[in-house]
Order: sequence, then C-alpha cells, then structure tokens
Amino acid sequence: MKGEIIAIGTELVCGRVKDTNTFFLSRELARHGLEIRSVSIIPDEESTIAETLLEASGRSAFVVVTGGLGPTRDDLTVKAVSRAFKLPLKQDPVSWSLLKAYAEKHHLAMGENVKKMALLPEGATKLDTQTPKAGFLLEFNHRIFYFLPGIPAETKELFERVVLRDLLNRVTERPLVLTKIIKIFGLREVEIENRISDLLPEFRYLSVSFLPCFPEQHLHVTVKGARKQELRRELDEFVSRVSDRLGDYIYGYDDETMESVVGELLKKGNYTLSVAESCTGGLIGHRITNVSGSSDYFRCGTVVYSNEAKVEVLGIDEELIRKHGAVSEEVATAMCSNVKKLGKSDLAIATTGIAGPTGGTPEKPVGTVFIGIGLRDKIKVRRYLFEGNRHEIKTMTSQMALDMIRRGLLKEKKK
Amino acid sequence: MKGEIIAIGTELVCGRVKDTNTFFLSRELARHGLEIRSVSIIPDEESTIAETLLEASGRSAFVVVTGGLGPTRDDLTVKAVSRAFKLPLKQDPVSWSLLKAYAEKHHLAMGENVKKMALLPEGATKLDTQTPKAGFLLEFNHRIFYFLPGIPAETKELFERVVLRDLLNRVTERPLVLTKIIKIFGLREVEIENRISDLLPEFRYLSVSFLPCFPEQHLHVTVKGARKQELRRELDEFVSRVSDRLGDYIYGYDDETMESVVGELLKKGNYTLSVAESCTGGLIGHRITNVSGSSDYFRCGTVVYSNEAKVEVLGIDEELIRKHGAVSEEVATAMCSNVKKLGKSDLAIATTGIAGPTGGTPEKPVGTVFIGIGLRDKIKVRRYLFEGNRHEIKTMTSQMALDMIRRGLLKEKKK
Repeated sequence: MKGEIIAIGTELVCGRVKDTNTFFLSRELARHGLEIRSVSIIPDEESTIAETLLEASGRSAFVVVTGGLGPTRDDLTVKAVSRAFKLPLKQDPVSWSLLKAYAEKHHLAMGENVKKMALLPEGATKLDTQTPKAGFLLEFNHRIFYFLPGIPAETKELFERVVLRDLLNRVTERPLVLTKIIKIFGLREVEIENRISDLLPEFRYLSVSFLPCFPEQHLHVTVKGARKQELRRELDEFVSRVSDRLGDYIYGYDDETMESVVGELLKKGNYTLSVAESCTGGLIGHRITNVSGSSDYFRCGTVVYSNEAKVEVLGIDEELIRKHGAVSEEVATAMCSNVKKLGKSDLAIATTGIAGPTGGTPEKPVGTVFIGIGLRDKIKVRRYLFEGNRHEIKTMTSQMALDMIRRGLLKEKKK
Repeated sequence: MKGEIIAIGTELVCGRVKDTNTFFLSRELARHGLEIRSVSIIPDEESTIAETLLEASGRSAFVVVTGGLGPTRDDLTVKAVSRAFKLPLKQDPVSWSLLKAYAEKHHLAMGENVKKMALLPEGATKLDTQTPKAGFLLEFNHRIFYFLPGIPAETKELFERVVLRDLLNRVTERPLVLTKIIKIFGLREVEIENRISDLLPEFRYLSVSFLPCFPEQHLHVTVKGARKQELRRELDEFVSRVSDRLGDYIYGYDDETMESVVGELLKKGNYTLSVAESCTGGLIGHRITNVSGSSDYFRCGTVVYSNEAKVEVLGIDEELIRKHGAVSEEVATAMCSNVKKLGKSDLAIATTGIAGPTGGTPEKPVGTVFIGIGLRDKIKVRRYLFEGNRHEIKTMTSQMALDMIRRGLLKEKKK
C-alpha cells in the first residue's frame, strides 16, 4: 500500500523556486507509517501532467498532488485530470456557492477566472467545504487522488486539516511509527557509527539514519511496528544505550538546539553570561538570544572586531595586542577576563580568530581561532584550527564556544 | 530536447533528508538553456530505480541521476541500471586502478565494498578519470545518462567539472539564457507587480518570476533566445526600466546581499560604523561581519540585552530606562549616541524592541521595535511594529537597520 507525491509547477523544475511541499508531505506521511514509492516534480504542461497521473494510477494506492489549481491560464491540473482519466469537467455546486459568497462579501466580479475555479472533473469532491480554497479528492481505478493547492501554507493547512485524516481512515493497516532525533556535536559520522553499529542487530523494529547538520550530527531513530508499548520500550532502550556510548557528545534531543540546552543549564544553575566576540562578529550573542527568556542569564555582549574596539570597549592593553597579535592566547584571555568584569557575570566566553578568506599567515593560517572561557576565577583558552569558508569558520567557532559553556556547566554540576 | 533528473535515496522520500541536488541541477540546467521535463525522487529500491530509468529512456534526451553509488548494500543504482538496460556488470579498469592506488596510499584493504565500486554496466565510462570518486556516463537508446554520487558537494563538483561541459558539447541547439536577480526590500510582491506589470508585454524574450526571500523580494529575470547582443540589450533595458520604477527599493543585484551593499557604501565613503543591539542580540554585527573586509569599517558592536548592560556597557542613564522603559525612543537615542562615542565612529545604529513571544504590553506589543541611526551629529529614531515569530522579528529588525544605513548613505552621496 504505497503512495506517491506529485508537485506541479514550471517554476519548480527550472530552479526558480525551491519546492518545499514534497519534503513536508513525505515527512508527514512517513511519520504516520505511510510509505512513499516516489516523488515527481513536473512543469505546468497538460500532457506531462496527464502522463504522470496515468502512470501513478497504475502503481500507487494513493497520490497526493500539489499545484496548478489557481485561476490563471498556466494552471492546468484540472484540465490534465480530465484528459488523463477521460472525465468531463462540471461545475461543482459546493465550490460555486462558496466562491460566489466570497466574491459578494469582497465586492468582486465573478469573472471567467473565478468560474474556472468551480470546475471539477466528474466524480471529484471538494476537500474544504468551509472555504473557497481550491483542492479536491478523486477516486480513479481504485486509487485515491488528493489535489492540493501549491502555495506551501495552503498545502500544509489543507493536508493537516482534511487530507491526512481522510487518508488514515482509508488505510487502516499501517505500522505505528515512533521517532527520536539524537543531536551530537564533536564526533564525525564514522566515529559515531563505530561506537554504536554493534548495537543495531539487537533491535527488531528500529532503523537509524545519519543526517549531518553542519556543524552537528543528527541521528534519526525510527521504530516501526504494531504495539506501541513495545516500540516505546525499544526506542527508549536504544536511546539509553547510545547515550552510554556517546556520553556528553550528545547535547540534546528532538527540538533542542545547542543554544537552548546552554540556556537551560545557565538558568538552572543561576549563572549569568557575558560574551566578547571578535571573529564571530555577534553570532554567539545572536544564537544565545534566539532563545526566548535569554534575558534571564545573558548579561552583555561586545563585538570587538577591530583592535581599537578591543582597547576602547574592553580595555585590552595595546601593548599586549602589539606583542602577541589580536589572534592569540593572551588577547583571548584578556578579552574573557575583561568582559566578565564588564558584565559582572559568573561566566564569560571570548573568541578571536581568522575567519578568512584573507588575513592568514604561516604561523596563524585562516581558521586559527582562540576561544577563552572564564568560570569562577579561572580562565581557560583553547586554540583551534577550523576548516571551511568564512561562514563555516564563524559557525564552527560559535558552536565550539557554546559547547565549551555546556561542558563547563556539566562539570560544575557533577562537582 | 528535454532532459530529466532522478534523485535516488530512501532518506529523501521519507522526509529524513531534504533533497538539495535536484534544485541545484535544475537551476544549473535551466541557466544553460536546457529544459527539464521532470524531476523524480525515488527510494533505494532496485525495481523502482529500474522502472524509472526505463521510463526516462523512453521520453528524455538526457538524464542526470544522483545517489545510490556508494559501497554499502543499500546502494543499488548500478545493479538497477544493469537490470533495466540488460547490461552485464564488468570491472572497470580505470575505476579499479584509481581505487587500488587510493587504498594503497591510505593503507586500506581492498574489501568487497571497494571491489563493488569498480563494477560498471557494460559500455559505461567513468566520469572522473583523476580520482576514484564514483560517477559514470552511459548511452542507451540514443539517450545519454549521467550517474552522479548523492552527496551534494560531490554532485556539485562533478557536475560542474565534467557533466555540464560534456552535456553542452552534445546539445548544440539550445537557446541562450541570460538572467539577472533584482533584490528588493520594502515593497510587497503585489506592490512590485502593480508597479512593473505593464512593462512586460514590451519585451519579447523575457520572463519574470517572483521569489520571496524573507524579508526581501527577489525578482528573477530571464531572457531566452538566439542572439546574445539582442538578449543583453533587452535584459539591460528591462532592468533599467524596473530600476526607474522601483528606485531605492532595489538594494542590489545577483550575488549582492544587504550587508555587502552596506559594506560597499561604508567603504567607498570612508565611514566607520558602531552598533548597539538589544533585541537583535548580535545579529546585526554577525551580518556585517559576514562580509570579508568588514574590519575596514566596522568599529565595534555592543549587545546590551539586559538593562544592567545598557547602564554599565553603554552608560545609559538608569533613570531614563525607568522613566521610558528599555524599549523606547529615548533609550534608542541614548544607545545610538553612546555607542557612537564609544566606537568613535561616523555612523551608529541602535535597536531596542520586543522580539517575543513574551514581554509584550498593550502599549508596546510584541514586535514593537525602535531603531536609531546616528550620522554626523544627528540621531533619528523610528518606531516599527513587526509581525512574526521571534526569529522573524529579529531578522526584520536587522534588515531594517541595515537598510536605514544604506538609505542614509545614499542620501549623503546625493548631497
């Protein structure tokens, strides 16, 4: 009982607009145990649409189609359905009265465009019987077709409100699916695999896939089966075993982010934080303040990108910069120490490095970064050499800085 | 002479991994005047792959396939090709020697996995003859098939270095395509359409599509035809007419970003900039420093998220905050004035607002933002009410702040 997804739109096949509907739909269907045979993206061409629909009707139990339902001349989906399945187009009374009511309310004329919107292939049923929004259901060759509008917000709304429910009622025999995302930082994919691959054969209903989300690794764990309790037990058992193997390399699960986890630790421990950023340019502050409620622990940030700013804003000794360079352990230490005093905070973090593409030297090539962390009276500085372009080096530095805070606070907790 | 794209990978059809290859490929093909009939995304299933390849061989002149070429058991593309086109698998001598050399260099064993990587369908040619990277070319039924690895960076590299060139040599009759992206901020899609839609009928070879890139609007202009000069003239003429209609709402073109345009203006005018951020939390500094060379004009940033930081880092009068609230015209003015002094800069920008979801009041609901700009001796503050979630309000505020700098500097230039 597999299904398929068809997205219609010329803009989608020529790289003008990135299709997002098919990803949303396949994820939602998979979450509910519905398997997808294929996803097709095709242009607004009557013959191609008709061909693709006919192919689908020969191989898939259900088909979710998006796009091409609008009022303009390049919206051809309804015509293509009529051609593919040899069904005449008829005025749908439900669509017609909803469109008429809408037009009257908004003082619009019922032009040819609007009349077109009320035409459906014989046997089709409008999906949304409350609003004039396009979208219909059609059974053909014992297969069920859902036609949805292409605008992502409308696709999503109609799918969640009407289509998914209807589909789940029809497909009664489908597996239960539970998922968990394990979020890891500091290990490469192959290192994670080596540490956990021997666990997999022990679990019957479970499958695992790796999703690199730079600079993190996400492990998507899925259990599929019939009995919820059994699945839940297996999923929990696996997550706990993986957690034993990977330890603090796991920073969180599911919707958690590195900054939300750091925020939780700061909040729970009643810590305040200040940040001095050079090469990250404000990215650490930005990430910390992406978390709602971060004003509880975030005291201040300084972006001291130039040497003058390091001197004037943070009071770094000019002589220190001249002697060791702005990208040095000494300057990272001073930045960390001084921003901690400035913000009167329990914790401070400082970054200074060369994000590139210019500014590297043989001793300090592009990607050289010093990160300092100050907790209580101690300041610790680490030197890194990150790879990648400017954006990647900034991202990696901010991630490592946040991770240093996380690990520092975890250690404190264990004391 | 249409082509098609097939992406293979179970993770892509169950919503675990978002396919990015097909968007990249369709955009690149379209840019070179090559039309795409359809895009298919299918799982790692031998029969589905074989079916899809056979269908493609009956309808498309060229086919670009990605994925399923790796060494593990779920990589089935080569086997499926063999089945679909009835071609036996043979050890490819080029692949074999490259794989062997690689294994020797890295002291790896030539296991079954590696041997599998050297098997190609009879008649196939390895695409990359320099490295062991997977990928091959095959002609079948007078159609040309390119098989590429599924890892986006590898797909991209091999496509750009080998496939595109080969394909363009084969397809000699294709239209010339020129494109231009016009980047707009401050107008809604419908407002842009109203201002320029009457221009379109005057242009023969031109098509226009809208791509909303929150918080901007991008207008993709494409001209397609035979004579380069004529196309160039039409494109330039259209862009210039649109520019007359939209004026300074257009901030840039093609690869330019709001922050790179602001950076250019600062650099050319020999201005320096300081930033005081409350609700944006460092995002403005982050965006400014995304531009390489920004140290030439970016003096310093302060993230004064808490009231204490406003007082201690920027020296804002506590009484002022108590009287007017941290989110007020008065505090924005003081932040702007004080950070300008602190950074000794020609220009300063300050943001204070309520990013939500909490913290709103009837007088100052979530989304209320004050942005101050200081240029020479004048400080101007504007009050906004932005819509959206926390992330959108931060993004919109940073965008508006950068745009205020841009418009301020454009005015200076005209003086």
